[in-house]
Amino acid sequence: MTEEEVNPAGLEKSEEVASDREAGKIESKKYVYSFKEGKKEMKQLLGGKGANLAEMTSLGLPIPPGFTISTEACQKYYDNDEALPKNIQEEVENKLKELEEDTGKKLGDNENPLLVSVRSGAAKSMPGMMDTVLNLGLNDESVEGLAKQTGNDRFAWDSYRRFIQMFGDVVIGINNEHFEKVLDNIKEEKGVEQDTELETEDLKKIVERYKDLFKKETEELFPNDPKEQLSMSIDAVFGSWNNSRAIKYRNLNSIKGLIGTAVNVQMMVFGNMGKDSGTGVAFTRNPSTGEKKMYGEFLIDAQGEDVVAGIRTPEKIDDLKEKMPEIHSQLSDIKENLEKNYKDMQDLEFTIEKGKLYILQTRDGKRTANAAVKIAADMVEEGLVKKKEALLRVDPNSLNQLLHKQLSQEEKETRDSIAKGLPASPGAAKGKVVFDSDEAADRAHEGEDVILVRKETSPEDIEGMHAAKGILTSRGGMTSHAAVVARGMGKCCIAGCSDLNISENEKVVEVNGKVINKGDILTLDGGTGEVYEGEIEMVEPDLRGNFAKIMEWSDEFRDLGIMTNADTPEDAKKAINFGAEGIGLCRTEHMFFEESRIKAVREMILSETKDARKKALDKILPMQKEDFAGIFRAMYEKPITIRLLDPPLHEFLPKEDEDIQNLAKELGVEPQDIKKKISDLYEFNPMLGHRGCRLAISYPEITEMQSKAIFEAAADIKSEGGNVKPEVMVPLVGNVKEFENQKKIIDDVAKTVQNEKGIEINYKIGTMIEVPRGALTADKIAKKAEFFSFGTNDLTQMTLGISRDDAGFLQNYDELGIYDKPFQSLDQEGVGELMKIAIRKGKEENKNLKVGICGEHGGDPSTIEFCYNEGLNYVSCSPFRVPVARLAAAQANVKKENNGL
Amino acid sequence: MTEEEVNPAGLEKSEEVASDREAGKIESKKYVYSFKEGKKEMKQLLGGKGANLAEMTSLGLPIPPGFTISTEACQKYYDNDEALPKNIQEEVENKLKELEEDTGKKLGDNENPLLVSVRSGAAKSMPGMMDTVLNLGLNDESVEGLAKQTGNDRFAWDSYRRFIQMFGDVVIGINNEHFEKVLDNIKEEKGVEQDTELETEDLKKIVERYKDLFKKETEELFPNDPKEQLSMSIDAVFGSWNNSRAIKYRNLNSIKGLIGTAVNVQMMVFGNMGKDSGTGVAFTRNPSTGEKKMYGEFLIDAQGEDVVAGIRTPEKIDDLKEKMPEIHSQLSDIKENLEKNYKDMQDLEFTIEKGKLYILQTRDGKRTANAAVKIAADMVEEGLVKKKEALLRVDPNSLNQLLHKQLSQEEKETRDSIAKGLPASPGAAKGKVVFDSDEAADRAHEGEDVILVRKETSPEDIEGMHAAKGILTSRGGMTSHAAVVARGMGKCCIAGCSDLNISENEKVVEVNGKVINKGDILTLDGGTGEVYEGEIEMVEPDLRGNFAKIMEWSDEFRDLGIMTNADTPEDAKKAINFGAEGIGLCRTEHMFFEESRIKAVREMILSETKDARKKALDKILPMQKEDFAGIFRAMYEKPITIRLLDPPLHEFLPKEDEDIQNLAKELGVEPQDIKKKISDLYEFNPMLGHRGCRLAISYPEITEMQSKAIFEAAADIKSEGGNVKPEVMVPLVGNVKEFENQKKIIDDVAKTVQNEKGIEINYKIGTMIEVPRGALTADKIAKKAEFFSFGTNDLTQMTLGISRDDAGFLQNYDELGIYDKPFQSLDQEGVGELMKIAIRKGKEENKNLKVGICGEHGGDPSTIEFCYNEGLNYVSCSPFRVPVARLAAAQANVKKENNGL
Repeated sequence: MTEEEVNPAGLEKSEEVASDREAGKIESKKYVYSFKEGKKEMKQLLGGKGANLAEMTSLGLPIPPGFTISTEACQKYYDNDEALPKNIQEEVENKLKELEEDTGKKLGDNENPLLVSVRSGAAKSMPGMMDTVLNLGLNDESVEGLAKQTGNDRFAWDSYRRFIQMFGDVVIGINNEHFEKVLDNIKEEKGVEQDTELETEDLKKIVERYKDLFKKETEELFPNDPKEQLSMSIDAVFGSWNNSRAIKYRNLNSIKGLIGTAVNVQMMVFGNMGKDSGTGVAFTRNPSTGEKKMYGEFLIDAQGEDVVAGIRTPEKIDDLKEKMPEIHSQLSDIKENLEKNYKDMQDLEFTIEKGKLYILQTRDGKRTANAAVKIAADMVEEGLVKKKEALLRVDPNSLNQLLHKQLSQEEKETRDSIAKGLPASPGAAKGKVVFDSDEAADRAHEGEDVILVRKETSPEDIEGMHAAKGILTSRGGMTSHAAVVARGMGKCCIAGCSDLNISENEKVVEVNGKVINKGDILTLDGGTGEVYEGEIEMVEPDLRGNFAKIMEWSDEFRDLGIMTNADTPEDAKKAINFGAEGIGLCRTEHMFFEESRIKAVREMILSETKDARKKALDKILPMQKEDFAGIFRAMYEKPITIRLLDPPLHEFLPKEDEDIQNLAKELGVEPQDIKKKISDLYEFNPMLGHRGCRLAISYPEITEMQSKAIFEAAADIKSEGGNVKPEVMVPLVGNVKEFENQKKIIDDVAKTVQNEKGIEINYKIGTMIEVPRGALTADKIAKKAEFFSFGTNDLTQMTLGISRDDAGFLQNYDELGIYDKPFQSLDQEGVGELMKIAIRKGKEENKNLKVGICGEHGGDPSTIEFCYNEGLNYVSCSPFRVPVARLAAAQANVKKENNGL
Repeated sequence: MTEEEVNPAGLEKSEEVASDREAGKIESKKYVYSFKEGKKEMKQLLGGKGANLAEMTSLGLPIPPGFTISTEACQKYYDNDEALPKNIQEEVENKLKELEEDTGKKLGDNENPLLVSVRSGAAKSMPGMMDTVLNLGLNDESVEGLAKQTGNDRFAWDSYRRFIQMFGDVVIGINNEHFEKVLDNIKEEKGVEQDTELETEDLKKIVERYKDLFKKETEELFPNDPKEQLSMSIDAVFGSWNNSRAIKYRNLNSIKGLIGTAVNVQMMVFGNMGKDSGTGVAFTRNPSTGEKKMYGEFLIDAQGEDVVAGIRTPEKIDDLKEKMPEIHSQLSDIKENLEKNYKDMQDLEFTIEKGKLYILQTRDGKRTANAAVKIAADMVEEGLVKKKEALLRVDPNSLNQLLHKQLSQEEKETRDSIAKGLPASPGAAKGKVVFDSDEAADRAHEGEDVILVRKETSPEDIEGMHAAKGILTSRGGMTSHAAVVARGMGKCCIAGCSDLNISENEKVVEVNGKVINKGDILTLDGGTGEVYEGEIEMVEPDLRGNFAKIMEWSDEFRDLGIMTNADTPEDAKKAINFGAEGIGLCRTEHMFFEESRIKAVREMILSETKDARKKALDKILPMQKEDFAGIFRAMYEKPITIRLLDPPLHEFLPKEDEDIQNLAKELGVEPQDIKKKISDLYEFNPMLGHRGCRLAISYPEITEMQSKAIFEAAADIKSEGGNVKPEVMVPLVGNVKEFENQKKIIDDVAKTVQNEKGIEINYKIGTMIEVPRGALTADKIAKKAEFFSFGTNDLTQMTLGISRDDAGFLQNYDELGIYDKPFQSLDQEGVGELMKIAIRKGKEENKNLKVGICGEHGGDPSTIEFCYNEGLNYVSCSPFRVPVARLAAAQANVKKENNGL
């Protein structure tokens, strides 16, 4: 286990180094590192790709030689008005000389030319977001050298024309369509259809026309000097760090704190040099199931892009055993070597050039939740990692996948699939077919379930993929863009389903004679790759085996309590099943909405006197008492935090005219009276209105009734021989006097009930901290309250001054990187600061104060880590987030321990 | 000048003493003080009444002897389960013995009985809220003694029956009606109507029946033992400290931090013992005009209550000169003596018993603003106080009265108001009733005086409100739109006048049966909330003389800058006239509402593309530029803080169907499109929605246009030879990235304009701190911003989580003492805490950071003191609050200086 891997915070450390250097504290003039000089721990400086290439070089693996221009150079590039400073240019030239010496080849040489790739590589993976240039070094002289060297004229000229096209597109920004047009014209002139039908002479003609195109577009000649090509390409890659696509990607993926990308310059190797060549990708274990068996795909006589792009359908890696047994065995050894070194499952890219294996990249492999859990458990069994380390290998958020439903096996057996593709990412999904990412996003926003159907996906589809329930593509393999991204999202995906005949323009797909239109319903089984027409029932997941093991280890290492938000005995049971230790938030308002009691609730609201209100409340009391008794029974002796009525009263009144008429009839009042009440209760900003304890202070009889229901139910359970520890939570307290007002009512009722029943009840009274003022005056409140529970939903709304219901503009904010989804993951800088103030002030006044969180953030891993580090006693989250929280809490412990070392 | 008077914070000091004692740090067993032992500085311990009686005793004035049981004893009373502890009871008995020795009388004696009064008296005056017992010491024996002593049987028995009645009512809680019934019965039996017609024998009969009543109600005999009477009465007075009436009074009057009331036991003297007796009240100067001349009233042969109760019409104090010249001359001497000692105008109560003068009470006299200003100025002239001390004698809030037109007091007294609402904005106004803002503007334009009568107002009414002389609404509280805007404009406004039954369509209002039609004349008194039919004469304010003197002295002593909130050149000029040093808040949205440009604004809002928006904004640009130029000219070189557009866009769209139709016609679009836009822009919580810089981040072209208008206007003024220092303020910043986003736009425009015009403009860019997160991350924002201005209106709403528009429940909160009018006076405990955090963090990062406040709190004296103490550079308030702020700021300086001594 390396420091960097265990500690994502290593990032900040590296940043510090960088800024120390800037400040002149560390004298360092080195910006370019040979692969022989680096190691995997230098990710911040060399980028992920560069650091891993260096690591593998030092492990003695067959890596094409090269060097990395560091992320600090990227910073200098931007400091220097988007140009690489002289001193770094010189360093690059020196490293290039070294590379020429090491390879015995020479850039631009007409005998034995060195060709290089120029690729981006930041500390965090941003696939496809930045620029890449291949075959660099080709010019009118070296193309001859390449021809001689390879004995293949056509290959050399094809490489040359590809290089000009890529350089023109990527480095200069010439529209790629212009190049394609040239290509098409030549094919037309020659009367052929496929690129492969073109001969050397045709390719030479294309090169000439490409150069003409280049001159026309740029008013400059295509640079014949390979060093100029290189320097322009390096600038282009650094420049691509801040293209709008990359910025948007970083903002959307919360990639923060990076200083730039590194640039890797590496000797080209070719997988497209004949039947003894090829290229492929391999996982050291199965990324879908976690099985300990090399998994991957390859193509003979092809370049790397061909595998990823999904144009040709690749072969399984097992087949390599037969076709190239030595290569397969070498790969197997490398697999073992890498896992031993990285202590994690790896995803590697390789190329075979004329029978020689090269590794071009390795990185921690993306995997399904199922695979992650199995790999983590297996690696502990294998003695490869310790339990604590294994826990860090599983992304808590991914566990969500395991908790969700699968297709009903029985129903599936009665149905025929209409097509079968690659099971690219497990799970099941059903929804309406859409062919367009924007439409997917729009419809999902309106609450519809959609299946995104595409020939293939590209980074531009990310948003639509996020929004869709499932993704279905007709092209590409298990490592295609769609597959990789969907697995990362834990989203059901079927890729390479070649039976589909998709017409994206006409919004229709033809499948083996069937026509599926936009809006028709499909069901996907991501575990098998099967596609079904219409809906299929879904069933609950299985939580035993490796999942249970990871959960058990999590509980072994975590200190933070994991509670759940549950309002019904059913939810409570589900959460206990998922490992919850109690209820951190039991909302009482849903009980008010139930058919059987809403009438009494409305009667209460329409009452003009306290007596009338009490009469209505008396009708609700026995029902509410039964609610609590049910939950108490479900939870046995586990603590239960019950929040008193929170929403504004107008939420309980009917809105439609018809409903108002009916209610009036039922209650024997005039519809006009109800309308007047609705108008009286209207609020401009209900979020900041008459609700929570404010309501209960206006109508203390509501708190009386609810307290009575709680304590009478508790007394009943105790008299049945059970035990129960209700914790009564007063909502929306911003001022200790509000709390005192409510506490007195609750205590008085508790006293009365205990006396009447002759039963002692062990209870606590505390409050939500969800109003900024509550946090700011936590010292005063903590003198009276026994516990705090941060209601971070409202606290975020009020602290940021942003209503969740009106936060359409936040999408723009996301893209601009202003806020990072503050309603999903705690805004630690702002809301977190307020929480720290409240915790400090609260604990100073009351050492025994119990502190938790019950906003939706309570199920978010990074928030959980924050909560643990700030000394909270527990987090409370929805039942489905409980396993996520258990693992995230354990990781928080392990990370803290590691940081402390 | 005594410490206590200059420093209201002395209160806390005294509290500390009390708690030190509790903690045993100071050993003190003394709870009862003879009048000879105290002095006026001991108000916290002895209550106001007790301390002043002691002070006057030590000055040698004729004070009936007595003693005070301290406020600390009150605390002990409550600590001891509402009973006076033994040791204090013993102290009382000792003091009583002393009193008997001093007076030569004896409690309960049948020859020369001592009668005492038992009165409450806290450190702050709470008139009528707590209990009082008079004539204590009378029983079956001492009534004879009193008869002998006074030679007046009837007087003695009448006193006795009064005592039983008062004791039964106040101490025991017997319903007073029972006693009145007995009295009525006897009168009926005797066939008389007046109490005075009863003879001694009748009174004796009443005493018997009172005793029977007492026994029947309490099952106890009336206590014949005067010591028991005394001890019960003391307990009752202490007990009345926490009766609900007293608690409510303290909450409503923001009386905080007191530990309890003191109890004064004092020898009774009688003003109703014949023609040589009497009673009265006197002010040492005229409390209405401030004239240096004793002012007051008296009644011959009467008790104190008779003067206050207003049953008999009292005579003017001047008449005493003739009737009792010696007493008058003695009173005059006492007046001089008291003013010299208290250094303030005094309000005193006296009784003349058989030709001998007694002073029963003195306290600082309440006075009108006019009187306060004159008295303060005169006392400096007289050498009685220094300027600094004189400033503390004037209540800053009262100055408001002096700045507005007032109704002629004489004419008012002859007229009855037809309705009464909330005095939302002071001043007086008369004019013709209109129900429509456009009509108000039209008629005003034609030179008519109009009163705008509306159910409630909205931003669309701004123009009409500007045009009207006064505003009258039937809904909304002191912080409703009408109230807030009217106060800002310094315009008379009565809000929430629920007696009005307004039919805006039919242009008629029904008030308590009266019908007022459009065009009828109403007169409003904004200081009292009274509405009159027809005209009442008005008098103009005079800002010269003493007022000018107080303002001048204020400026001499204050350090805090006083800016104003002004959106128009007219307001700006008015504020300068009142002494403002610049504009702290110039809102730009009112400019958008004006008739001439609202169309372009709406066109901008309805634009679907950036280009269309820009086109519409281009139309607004020259108008907005002219707005700024006008204000710049009005302010000369004074700083001007301009806030960029703040309200949500939907505020600018029409609401009524007719207006929508018209707009559609004007713009050549479908009404449906406008309705869709209105529905798209609908927000659940507009307070927390898409407004402020959020809007400007979505539509940067708005900021571009506004910046262009600002800088082009500034450049024009400079080229005219003027100078101008615009400070551009970005609203609603919660995140430094929002600020950076806007700052870049503003800086870019500034650069462009300066280059184009070849003129350098001295400008600043800063932000409102009005979102809690902005305060919490002030360190980050201060790195980029040149100034902060606390927008405490929104900051209070968000920190407390209370929408001003929906804060009806706050009235209940006021009564319960939960919040103390947080939208009028800064909630220092909560919002103040957040401000302190922001100030600390901001100044740590940016030493040159200018910090001010521009919420409505900026004109509130206690907020101003807070701002000064927290190191703010300035406060900004509406023009009419500027004089208030100047005085309050000076007082803050003086108080701090005094505290420092």
